[in-house]
Amino acid sequence: MNQQKIKTEIINIGDELLIGQVVNTNASWMSEKMNLAGFAVERVTVIRDDEQEILGSLEEASRRSDIVLITGGLGPTKDDITKKTFCRYFGTGLVFNQEAYENIYALFTPRGFVVTPLNCSQAEVPANCIAILNVNGTAPGMWFEEEMNGRKVIFMSMPGVPFEMKTMMEERVIPMLREKFHPPVIRHKTILTQGVGESFLSDMIEEWELALPSNIRLAYLPQPGVVRLRLTGEGDDLQKLSEQIAAETGKLRSLIGQYIFGEDDDTLEEITGKLLLERKETLAVAESCTGGYIGHLITSVPGSSAYFRGGTIAYSNEIKQSVLGVQEFSLIQHGAVSETVVREMAEGARRVYGSTWAIATSGIAGPGGATAEKPVGLTWIAIAGPEGTVAGWYLFGENRERNIRKAALQALNLLRKSLIEPL
Amino acid sequence: MNQQKIKTEIINIGDELLIGQVVNTNASWMSEKMNLAGFAVERVTVIRDDEQEILGSLEEASRRSDIVLITGGLGPTKDDITKKTFCRYFGTGLVFNQEAYENIYALFTPRGFVVTPLNCSQAEVPANCIAILNVNGTAPGMWFEEEMNGRKVIFMSMPGVPFEMKTMMEERVIPMLREKFHPPVIRHKTILTQGVGESFLSDMIEEWELALPSNIRLAYLPQPGVVRLRLTGEGDDLQKLSEQIAAETGKLRSLIGQYIFGEDDDTLEEITGKLLLERKETLAVAESCTGGYIGHLITSVPGSSAYFRGGTIAYSNEIKQSVLGVQEFSLIQHGAVSETVVREMAEGARRVYGSTWAIATSGIAGPGGATAEKPVGLTWIAIAGPEGTVAGWYLFGENRERNIRKAALQALNLLRKSLIEPL
Repeated sequence: MNQQKIKTEIINIGDELLIGQVVNTNASWMSEKMNLAGFAVERVTVIRDDEQEILGSLEEASRRSDIVLITGGLGPTKDDITKKTFCRYFGTGLVFNQEAYENIYALFTPRGFVVTPLNCSQAEVPANCIAILNVNGTAPGMWFEEEMNGRKVIFMSMPGVPFEMKTMMEERVIPMLREKFHPPVIRHKTILTQGVGESFLSDMIEEWELALPSNIRLAYLPQPGVVRLRLTGEGDDLQKLSEQIAAETGKLRSLIGQYIFGEDDDTLEEITGKLLLERKETLAVAESCTGGYIGHLITSVPGSSAYFRGGTIAYSNEIKQSVLGVQEFSLIQHGAVSETVVREMAEGARRVYGSTWAIATSGIAGPGGATAEKPVGLTWIAIAGPEGTVAGWYLFGENRERNIRKAALQALNLLRKSLIEPL
Repeated sequence: MNQQKIKTEIINIGDELLIGQVVNTNASWMSEKMNLAGFAVERVTVIRDDEQEILGSLEEASRRSDIVLITGGLGPTKDDITKKTFCRYFGTGLVFNQEAYENIYALFTPRGFVVTPLNCSQAEVPANCIAILNVNGTAPGMWFEEEMNGRKVIFMSMPGVPFEMKTMMEERVIPMLREKFHPPVIRHKTILTQGVGESFLSDMIEEWELALPSNIRLAYLPQPGVVRLRLTGEGDDLQKLSEQIAAETGKLRSLIGQYIFGEDDDTLEEITGKLLLERKETLAVAESCTGGYIGHLITSVPGSSAYFRGGTIAYSNEIKQSVLGVQEFSLIQHGAVSETVVREMAEGARRVYGSTWAIATSGIAGPGGATAEKPVGLTWIAIAGPEGTVAGWYLFGENRERNIRKAALQALNLLRKSLIEPL
């Protein structure tokens, strides 16, 4: 790079972060986004909502960094003192901001709420800042650009509420920072895998990984049921960098293609939804151990009503029989967690709801429910479709929450495979 | 307080924490445990695994705090330089520690592993520290007690691997710190509210908040659909402090009792589950806009199969009719998002699934689906029970994910109220 390194740090303000009640996910999210935008975060500091602490941290940060991102302390309530502290730090006062006021007004009045004086005071910002619109809340962001110790420092103050901060960062702050600092070109490509562990993947791609060009890095990002492989390339020329990364992901596909279900921000619920929509086909679910979670994932996608008919949460054997038509004999002979029952559930859902496809799950999420032959984590999954039904069993782990998540993702990936390949 | 306030801060060392790859859960866990032990954590700093950064942070922390807890940078690989940096900071050298070596040997040999020179070097610690046994790993902890700026400062360095650090903190570090400092008693109580915004709550409890005793603080912790109010008290006498906090939460209950559903780590799904279990009653769901999310919340509680029968995700009008028995006339006359339909859904679910209670939701989660009379966010919720059915409408916001979450929590809270009060 032919430019000086830009230093960024993050200050998260909030007593709740210092007593362990809230995990500081803002810092990791912001660090990731800043990294992806070409800015290295060098430090994160978490401090109390206290004037002296804030003043001291701003002063220290201004001596080290070019960009200081601040979250927290901007709510309407009394424990939020950040704004006044900025005024004191910069030696200025609060001024009324018309755009911020109109935003508060626009958020409140259509819902029949009254704008209280407390809300109104949120439209006041320090005189030396640029107010940044908060499309998801009442507290505006504040962009300060000040000469400190002989150079320009950007201070950007944002609300601590994650979804308010995230939209502000993505839509306004990162574009403004990139325009100001012109960091090196960085390109990321994330390959998404399902149904295989990190260490197995690592063994399969070891040789490829060792041979990666020096300007491309690989990171493993494991989540329950999914391992993401992120390639990060840095360079001067966007075209060349994109070609380089495309070549490497091509090699990766030839090595572990059978585990890859998508790229970047793809989700299995979106991918399966798109496939169903293209094919003008419909889906129903019959959920036992997943308890509605697959339905929740599917319906978290806007527009899913076009292909998702609904389904049954068959948490009791009675419902498996009465609604889905599972045979009493099957339940007695094989138990609820069995191939026979999960097949009957999927076929029953497809028949009852008149859908092209149906997903069924039956398993032992834990911690209770295990038997000598059926341990916690054992899960049967079936997909019923126009050409027949497939079923498979999986042994997940001991953790209930993770077992539910893993079963749901496995089921959606089985549906995806059934949609793109003959059964 | 009849003693000076003890100041604690945490330094987490690790590049992985600064690129967003790993969420800093160590800091929140440590903060919580320290708080419960009577030590207020005043600051958390996350820095890179870099000598200058570590030296600078130790120096800054020693000027502010009495206790400095450090994690990370103690693994066997080359990027871990913390130990050498301590030597440099304290002007000392590494010495071989027999106990640490025996621990490494005991961990490795039964598994057939060979103790490599790299592992062996982990038994070396700075000459001025007390080595603290790591029962879950090879890197020992290091307790330094040094005179800095005219007073004693404790530096405690621990591995970054969470389960190694946690055992060390709980079994050794916290007992050693309590014995050394005899800290004041700290107590927290969190009151959980649903269905009311932060600023409205603030207006309702303003007078009470202003009259709080000086040793008790209030914090607002908002989440989608839930606002938590946390009281933190500090004192010398546990009994007196507990009484004081109980008195204040009592006042809070008399002011905003109708919005309070629980305390501390309670969740609506657990509370309603416990109530159903006590009453030996059962529950079914009929979910339209929430798409399975209520079922998911309920079944995320271990043992929920004792009271949850299951239900229907009625995403299409056909399913509302065919499974739940909603009248075609009602759908045509009033639309799916209406009091009539949501009542018929709840009553249908209760009848079809033979449950004591049923929850039904029907709303416009967004972004699509709005009409002139029915905006995005409009949601009807009904609870059917042995004494009849209640229904209400709510206008949430524009965000699909939050609307689903808010509707689910509102529905569970309505069920909770129906369970404890006559309909």
